[in-house]
Amino acid sequence: MTTVSQAPGVEPDGARLLARLAALADIGRTGSGACCRLALTDDDRRGRDLVVGWMRELGLQVSIDPIGNVFGLRPGRRADLAPVMTGSHIDTVRTGGAYDGNYGVLAGLEVVAALNDAGVSTERPLVVAFFTNEEGARFAPDMLGSLVYAGGLALDEALATRAIDGAVLGEELARIGYAGSAPLGGIRPAAFVELHVEQGPVLDLEGITIGAVESLQGISWQQVDIVGQSNHAGTTPMRMRHDAGYAAAAVAHFVRALTREMGGDQVGTVGKVDLTPNLINVIAARASLTVDLRNTDEALLQRAETRLAAFLDELAATEGVSISTQRLARFEPVRFDPGIAARIAAQAEALGYTHRRMSSGAGHDAQMLARICPTAMIFVPSVGGISHNPAEHTQPADLVAGLRVLFATLLQLANEGA
Amino acid sequence: MTTVSQAPGVEPDGARLLARLAALADIGRTGSGACCRLALTDDDRRGRDLVVGWMRELGLQVSIDPIGNVFGLRPGRRADLAPVMTGSHIDTVRTGGAYDGNYGVLAGLEVVAALNDAGVSTERPLVVAFFTNEEGARFAPDMLGSLVYAGGLALDEALATRAIDGAVLGEELARIGYAGSAPLGGIRPAAFVELHVEQGPVLDLEGITIGAVESLQGISWQQVDIVGQSNHAGTTPMRMRHDAGYAAAAVAHFVRALTREMGGDQVGTVGKVDLTPNLINVIAARASLTVDLRNTDEALLQRAETRLAAFLDELAATEGVSISTQRLARFEPVRFDPGIAARIAAQAEALGYTHRRMSSGAGHDAQMLARICPTAMIFVPSVGGISHNPAEHTQPADLVAGLRVLFATLLQLANEGA
Repeated sequence: MTTVSQAPGVEPDGARLLARLAALADIGRTGSGACCRLALTDDDRRGRDLVVGWMRELGLQVSIDPIGNVFGLRPGRRADLAPVMTGSHIDTVRTGGAYDGNYGVLAGLEVVAALNDAGVSTERPLVVAFFTNEEGARFAPDMLGSLVYAGGLALDEALATRAIDGAVLGEELARIGYAGSAPLGGIRPAAFVELHVEQGPVLDLEGITIGAVESLQGISWQQVDIVGQSNHAGTTPMRMRHDAGYAAAAVAHFVRALTREMGGDQVGTVGKVDLTPNLINVIAARASLTVDLRNTDEALLQRAETRLAAFLDELAATEGVSISTQRLARFEPVRFDPGIAARIAAQAEALGYTHRRMSSGAGHDAQMLARICPTAMIFVPSVGGISHNPAEHTQPADLVAGLRVLFATLLQLANEGA
Repeated sequence: MTTVSQAPGVEPDGARLLARLAALADIGRTGSGACCRLALTDDDRRGRDLVVGWMRELGLQVSIDPIGNVFGLRPGRRADLAPVMTGSHIDTVRTGGAYDGNYGVLAGLEVVAALNDAGVSTERPLVVAFFTNEEGARFAPDMLGSLVYAGGLALDEALATRAIDGAVLGEELARIGYAGSAPLGGIRPAAFVELHVEQGPVLDLEGITIGAVESLQGISWQQVDIVGQSNHAGTTPMRMRHDAGYAAAAVAHFVRALTREMGGDQVGTVGKVDLTPNLINVIAARASLTVDLRNTDEALLQRAETRLAAFLDELAATEGVSISTQRLARFEPVRFDPGIAARIAAQAEALGYTHRRMSSGAGHDAQMLARICPTAMIFVPSVGGISHNPAEHTQPADLVAGLRVLFATLLQLANEGA
């Protein structure tokens, strides 16, 4: 397997990347220091304008598709070969950090800048992309732009999506000047590599610099509604209770026990519980809770769902409560391309970075791109696993490490298959 | 043991009791059909005025003490003997029913009315009382009037109590004309019997008419605050979690298991749980929940508290969360007078009613009176165990049954020890 040797002496400039990250983070900055560039707001437009300006300065051929995804293409020596694409998104949640999404896009620009500076060309074209509404904080679903690009959601339907503030996506897109005319899915990449901060604690806690991300967890979100009987906490004997609050606790307790029993990648969380009437001395009449189950293996995720359903049936019978469930979200796990994950690991090794294979617990545009081309991701550590928070942080040295691994991987992919 | 034979042919009038209950329930009636006579409001004053008017019509000597407790005394043949007292309260919660409290007071008046009608006198004086602010819905603590009467709370302190609406108890008492001048605790009864609806489901579910209440549960209320670490529900491996939401569920699960293991009268409820941030895909950073433990036996209640504390210590260590507790309320169990409870059971038997010994799960003025004289309670069924609710209901036949047992018991007590 070839390594970084394809362009000896050429190095991306970490300081330039950090400066661009800082400049972009200044747009939509809130009083608490967070980044707030909700998709298709004026702040998102300002962020897009800045990045598109940088693309043009770097000589990239900018195209915008009808859902507002932006592509900056650097021609290769062979126009007949499909390009290698990198990128991510630049929209943020309401309390976003400086790196999530932005890092992958601006690292892509730095790869281009370094090649430009060194006068190095590649066989295949290189494309740096950013996709619309990855966060889903203003419009549902998340990863909407890449989903539409990959053919998973009809354009008309996507454009009609209504924001939590009532605005219509298509109108907002036109308003900020990003309803483009490039053919949807017109650029079909040979490969896609997304560089991203981990947003989890694994690399940070294990002291590893590079994650070669070979899969992405499947997600099962359910709402569980329990109807019991409100009664006096003092006068109602235990045997006569139909306690929705206890039943909710039993579900959360079961979810933990299930993950322990299944082991492996199975995770489960009850993060939201609401009791009614929620009083100290009243047995709860109703409980509403959410169950978040994730696994990298679809069969195991289905097994977890089946086990939960059986437990809910049993619980309803023993506690004398009625339980209904509602599916809030369901995504199958994604297997990234093992070859690209192997290249990422090999480049990290060659550059002297500690690395491991891993799975992504969060959703990313890469999972949509994986539908149409070989795809994998590069992770760098998130300090404390914190993201979607102004305290989101990745050490500059790790940001540079990820940039260098991305550079080497893209260069390798862009010179292959020629 | 003597029974109702002391006044052969004399019967209280159930219809007259029901009419008085209906008239009192009309005062403070809300749009939803509930009774709302929060303590020392204008509606409470109107209710008090109605009941005091009835007392005077019945020839009772009305006295009001400085905390607003009202006593109506019917002289006995022997002025040197301490009176037998009955009564309860007429304040309500915001969504009160027609019976809670009112029933015991108005049944006491009907006992007097029946004796008056038949021209029957008793050896000891009879007193019908109602106590201020039993519900605690406007002023804390509940059972305030009887607590002050029994010497458990200083008058000055009680008068300075501030309502949830900001008003001062002493000022409200004066404003509605119920700051009396009778010496506090001046009437010292030989015995106290309180008739009340059960407010629990036991009698209704078991099809039993009369409860001879021989004890009142001790109450332990704690707030449990758990601080964990907020993290992404997808990217955080199970072994790295410090999940305050799971810990809260584990506490509720433990409380149920503890009651099952201890059995007997031990009850336990987690009725209130609040997670932060309470989001589907975020491991909860903080949880606040309440634990309500009750037992009729102080040693067992302490054992339950000790077991809970040990569990919390263990949970804090295994989940890596910090847990603090705060005592919200603590009352020792009350043992009522076994002799009076036995008389109640015997009178119920003699009158042909099904009956059982039982414990009260709710607090009552009787628990304060038990500090100063032999005391017990009579319960009648609450349909579905519902109380503090406009749907509170007791069948008229059961209301009359309770009245007849009260009548017989009071008559017996008032003719004893002469």
